[in-house]
Amino acid sequence: MSSFASEIYVGIDGGGTKCCARIYSASGEILGLGIGGPANAYQSAEQAKESIIGATQQALNEAQLSMQTMKNLVAGAGLAGVNVENVLQQMNNWHHPFKKMYLTTDVHIACVGAHENNEGAVIIAGTGSCGYSFVNGKTTIIGGHGFPIGDKGSGAWVGFEGVKAVLLALDGLGATTLMSEKVAEHLRAKDEMIVEKINAATARDYAQLAHCVFAAAEENDTIAVQILREGANYLSVMADALWQTQPRRMSMIGGLTEYIMPWLAPAISTRLSVPLHQPEYGAFYFARQNFQK
Amino acid sequence: MSSFASEIYVGIDGGGTKCCARIYSASGEILGLGIGGPANAYQSAEQAKESIIGATQQALNEAQLSMQTMKNLVAGAGLAGVNVENVLQQMNNWHHPFKKMYLTTDVHIACVGAHENNEGAVIIAGTGSCGYSFVNGKTTIIGGHGFPIGDKGSGAWVGFEGVKAVLLALDGLGATTLMSEKVAEHLRAKDEMIVEKINAATARDYAQLAHCVFAAAEENDTIAVQILREGANYLSVMADALWQTQPRRMSMIGGLTEYIMPWLAPAISTRLSVPLHQPEYGAFYFARQNFQK
Repeated sequence: MSSFASEIYVGIDGGGTKCCARIYSASGEILGLGIGGPANAYQSAEQAKESIIGATQQALNEAQLSMQTMKNLVAGAGLAGVNVENVLQQMNNWHHPFKKMYLTTDVHIACVGAHENNEGAVIIAGTGSCGYSFVNGKTTIIGGHGFPIGDKGSGAWVGFEGVKAVLLALDGLGATTLMSEKVAEHLRAKDEMIVEKINAATARDYAQLAHCVFAAAEENDTIAVQILREGANYLSVMADALWQTQPRRMSMIGGLTEYIMPWLAPAISTRLSVPLHQPEYGAFYFARQNFQK
Repeated sequence: MSSFASEIYVGIDGGGTKCCARIYSASGEILGLGIGGPANAYQSAEQAKESIIGATQQALNEAQLSMQTMKNLVAGAGLAGVNVENVLQQMNNWHHPFKKMYLTTDVHIACVGAHENNEGAVIIAGTGSCGYSFVNGKTTIIGGHGFPIGDKGSGAWVGFEGVKAVLLALDGLGATTLMSEKVAEHLRAKDEMIVEKINAATARDYAQLAHCVFAAAEENDTIAVQILREGANYLSVMADALWQTQPRRMSMIGGLTEYIMPWLAPAISTRLSVPLHQPEYGAFYFARQNFQK
């Protein structure tokens, strides 16, 4: 095992927005971090490859390691999109610049990182939403179908529902509440101009509007409260379904977590465990586990 | 007035999908029809101009009139997007090939056509949805904010809600009903492949799925019934709001009309009048009215 102790690893978390790469020693010490462009392999395998290399170069640089070290790195990569069979194949056929590369999905490494264990469950509540568990070699994925058709209870969904309610009020078909004011402030737009402003809004744009809904709900805005209850209820139902796969631990991760947590029933939230590490650590852990086999 | 009687008109209905042009005699006799590309002036004023010319050339051809007649035509055009001030200006600055061109919105000419009168109200229930009334010189527009943020009760909305419910069932978080089967049949896809298939679906794609929801609802599928009730309820609330502007007549138009009509409360549907003419006639009527002033 002594040879394994000198290996250097890179843990890569690749999503639709950015790619994070962290260099780790074999014992799990962080040596450097790099951030690259989008790395959703389903959207573009070529861009994912570029982003992975870019992020790793940056991480090597921060770790004060030479670029030649790249070929000695044992890489673990969790990428969005590789759950699709032909996308996984495309990435596996890559003549990557690493000593070795172990590939899996971004949700898997998030789960491994959260539990410092290959098994467990996570609810992702960020711009999107998704439930995931890996127990006894069996993967369960709930939701995660993408915005706007899926991703209920996510930041994008909360913002989207908020804007829908504001437009309904604008048309005189729903109540104008505090939330209308907060959305107008955020968009720096009034009345019909709100429609113009959100005309080409993406999931990320809507997710940035979620805080308007949370802020209004805190002041007991009935419509905002209703939206958050519906979103939290969906995530609770998802948690129940994940518990049925009997994971030892379950965590909620993603940017919406701290905001939506108070809206979950205590029976749900008290059973959740804190995530132990970031997804990149999960990628490192996954790679080390496979490399030392 | 004798000179007016010899005028030839073209009535143009320009939407996001296609542009219809009809040649009319001054008395309203249809002489020819042409169909061109998209003519949503907000999306692209240049393309709208091209589509208008293309459709008119085709209509002249069908009317067995020479292309030189173009410059003698009095045109009425109802275009999507010209409710936005700078888009209207852009179209008004066009050195168009007609003798004269009178411009207004597509909903306005739909309303004029439906009532053979400058005043009235329409509910548009097609791929999208929108409420419109023009009474005593005052325009009221309800909804029409575009899919997916708006357009509740439209074909796109019905199909979208249907697919959402099917995906919920797929995740084991909702009931699998007859509708799941019908959507799978329509998409020729099962389970996770449904997500793949609707990955890049447009409003039109979703609208084409609406019939799955209607078909399932006819067989008392509870989820399909719930979706149609919610959509019909929105259109009913819209109708109530439009009646408050006191139009003499109100019609529902668009491809969803015949399907959604049975889902409206009788108090709503019995007050609706049949549309008398198509939107192109409305454009012709609008142009003649303005030309003869």
